[in-house]
Amino acid sequence: MAVSTVQIGILGCADIARKVSRAILLSQTATLYAVGSRSIEKAQKFAADNGFPATAKVYGRYEEVLDDPNVDAVYVPLPTSLHIKWAVLAAQKKKHLLLEKPVGLNIEEVDVILAACEANGVQFMDGTMWMHHPRTAKMREFLSDAKQFGELKSVHTCFTFTADQNFLENDIRVKPDLDGLGALGDVGWYCIRGILWAADYELPKSVIALRNPVFNKAGVIISCGASLLWEDGKVGTFHCSFLTNLTMNLTAVGTKGTLHLHDFIIPFEEKKASFISAVESGFKELATGWEPKPCEHTVTTDIPQEALMVREFCKLVGSIKNEGAKPEKKWPTLSRKTSLVLDAVKASIEKGFKAVEIVS
Amino acid sequence: MAVSTVQIGILGCADIARKVSRAILLSQTATLYAVGSRSIEKAQKFAADNGFPATAKVYGRYEEVLDDPNVDAVYVPLPTSLHIKWAVLAAQKKKHLLLEKPVGLNIEEVDVILAACEANGVQFMDGTMWMHHPRTAKMREFLSDAKQFGELKSVHTCFTFTADQNFLENDIRVKPDLDGLGALGDVGWYCIRGILWAADYELPKSVIALRNPVFNKAGVIISCGASLLWEDGKVGTFHCSFLTNLTMNLTAVGTKGTLHLHDFIIPFEEKKASFISAVESGFKELATGWEPKPCEHTVTTDIPQEALMVREFCKLVGSIKNEGAKPEKKWPTLSRKTSLVLDAVKASIEKGFKAVEIVS
Repeated sequence: MAVSTVQIGILGCADIARKVSRAILLSQTATLYAVGSRSIEKAQKFAADNGFPATAKVYGRYEEVLDDPNVDAVYVPLPTSLHIKWAVLAAQKKKHLLLEKPVGLNIEEVDVILAACEANGVQFMDGTMWMHHPRTAKMREFLSDAKQFGELKSVHTCFTFTADQNFLENDIRVKPDLDGLGALGDVGWYCIRGILWAADYELPKSVIALRNPVFNKAGVIISCGASLLWEDGKVGTFHCSFLTNLTMNLTAVGTKGTLHLHDFIIPFEEKKASFISAVESGFKELATGWEPKPCEHTVTTDIPQEALMVREFCKLVGSIKNEGAKPEKKWPTLSRKTSLVLDAVKASIEKGFKAVEIVS
Repeated sequence: MAVSTVQIGILGCADIARKVSRAILLSQTATLYAVGSRSIEKAQKFAADNGFPATAKVYGRYEEVLDDPNVDAVYVPLPTSLHIKWAVLAAQKKKHLLLEKPVGLNIEEVDVILAACEANGVQFMDGTMWMHHPRTAKMREFLSDAKQFGELKSVHTCFTFTADQNFLENDIRVKPDLDGLGALGDVGWYCIRGILWAADYELPKSVIALRNPVFNKAGVIISCGASLLWEDGKVGTFHCSFLTNLTMNLTAVGTKGTLHLHDFIIPFEEKKASFISAVESGFKELATGWEPKPCEHTVTTDIPQEALMVREFCKLVGSIKNEGAKPEKKWPTLSRKTSLVLDAVKASIEKGFKAVEIVS
């Protein structure tokens, strides 16, 4: 193992941690160094099932991972309500932090976490994997091309999946004391990030929730949507839900071009992903067809987006650790903006679908 | 020429009338029998350029088309503000009526037109061509399949195109005295129809316009959107505009399935058209890809959707004319529902984006 490898500890044995463990292996820039669970048996089984080396540390308490001086960074996939405690503690213990989304239950929690990271000089990154796919960079190029795409005017995202009865009754994402943001915090996070991404992270001026959100008996949102409004007239809309078929669309429409894709968060396939772009689309004579037609572009990747996420995180951690670099502010900034909008959607729902101003 | 052919007169020489003239020829169930324009020279040139037979009647006044006893039906592509006068007169002259959309400037006008058609026993149909594509029927089958699609929960449509400076200054669709509904009446009509179609024409309970509509100097809408809300929790959203790249998306999400297409109003190609359906989509192990993935379906057609529209219209006219059948109520009903929703969107904009109840 190269000296520069980042030694990662994982807090908890969530399902998503299995995917990230594999990503850590595939990244070839990090080591599965430790895992902690409130149950040591669970941690042992997790390590054995997920490719941890025989030398990996297995702990029966999260604190032990944070107290291990050889842990450079932690990946924290705990329920959102536990983020503030463990993320802040991790930062205080000088562990770089890869934190699952949503980052906190509200912007105040997010700010406490980000402040702790900043105060302790550790890198923060949330677990929004699709940000790291080379397709995303390629689509960014298209959106940034004034000649091809022009100016963004509208963007629509949708992320839904059909949760089964067990999920709807027992998953942490429907429990007010665990992931109290429900579908908004889970699938809605991606919808909001997708819109912000398309808007090159310019925050909207205000947010208005769509009517007809659905709540479970405990009052947790399981389906909702919103419109986002910018000062310059841009408009975004999204719909997110645990109640309908797996769908993940992003459509961005500019003055000159259009971008479409149907798998923006998790590509249909691991090693290649496509998007559709259209530039100065028009009709044939008599509008009997389109000319030019939209084009499909395919982007390949040797390792999946989650491994690229780990690689990016470890690159930043390595720079801090080995070269005395400062943490990259881009990632906490994106997390914060996403949380701000998410909070505004929630507030708009609570205020009877009134417009809620975004104050950064 | 078969005896049963329907003899069609066209009022005006609008650009869209060229497409419909070709459709009448392709339909093989109708004759280009007459054309009327306020300028006889324009009518002559139109007839000569658009395949009218040498025997076709060319009139210098719209009234003459309506007074010709051999005209069975008229196609009326006049500016919307003129619909009420000419559509009502056509009905009173017992001419079956194929009327361009939007049908009227408001629901009151639409009701006057439809009442005139009903009172005079003539068939009414609006010019929404995509209703007649076999792809639309195929997609309907999918949406109606409880096992494949389940229950509709959300639908999003978008129709925009970049109008050039000439259009934005001179087209009838930006003139308050001609097509005063602007982008809402033109591209928005299709967005609303698409949503109603997906909802199997169940009217929403209320409509709320999205903020940020754009008006031209004369106060005509050139970009807007809305959310539609149903009693059962379904939600629809649309965005329509003259200011962004040609885009025409429809996404319908059900409890079990998803439908996508990017050319729902005018297919990319004339003789074949596709849509994407997904049924019980899920992820592979560790969510590293989708299984099953959405499927593309292609539907072919010998003649374009506009010719199928003419064929359907003429079939109904023929039944009335030759078999004493009653006019088919489906088509006026769809026009009326579309107009009702369109009115509600306009009212919501005028009322500062308040929710407007739909009262049928």
